[in-house]
Amino acid sequence: MTLREEVEALAGVGPWTPAADWCDGDTHLELHLDVPGALPDSLELLEEGDTVTVAGQRPELTRLLHAERPSGTFRRTFTFPEPVVPQSGQATLSGGVLTVKFEKRHPTINVTAHSDD
Amino acid sequence: MTLREEVEALAGVGPWTPAADWCDGDTHLELHLDVPGALPDSLELLEEGDTVTVAGQRPELTRLLHAERPSGTFRRTFTFPEPVVPQSGQATLSGGVLTVKFEKRHPTINVTAHSDD
Repeated sequence: MTLREEVEALAGVGPWTPAADWCDGDTHLELHLDVPGALPDSLELLEEGDTVTVAGQRPELTRLLHAERPSGTFRRTFTFPEPVVPQSGQATLSGGVLTVKFEKRHPTINVTAHSDD
Repeated sequence: MTLREEVEALAGVGPWTPAADWCDGDTHLELHLDVPGALPDSLELLEEGDTVTVAGQRPELTRLLHAERPSGTFRRTFTFPEPVVPQSGQATLSGGVLTVKFEKRHPTINVTAHSDD
């Protein structure tokens, strides 16, 4: 048993808190959220100021002999790691991963030195 | 921050240990495993005696600003909660959830009392 498994066994399954990553693109920020089994129609995205809230749900299984997978609803609010263009979020769901791309307010500009400088 | 989030923040992202449930059907046992983003071709299933091992992987993201999602490879071995017919596992992958059905060696028989007994 890993530390994580031991802690989760002690704490019970608990609420569903999907793990999230933020990635930096040159022109976009990307939020990746693990939502395996989420009902696509249940997923909601709400941008408010410098935060984005994601919510959704997945059905609870019955006749469980052993349970580790949290289920029911989730709701998480994230603060943008850097400023984005309001209401620019574009979401896709693939293989149980929700990916949302936000347009950066200040795109990263790659500066290339010219040989004649 | 929930207890789980605090513990994971302390422990770092760590290895990928997909959460699993076992469900009881009348004639089958079902293993449900959360594998969002796993490469379908990477998934392996190995039945050996009273255990089943599941392995797979998902790509690591680059340019991470905030990281919670473990990635790379995983391998978990489960003991069947009750005896199953050897090599009867049938796997499906949908919405990031791997479901494997195993035929029970001793199906549950629903006994209904007859009114003329």
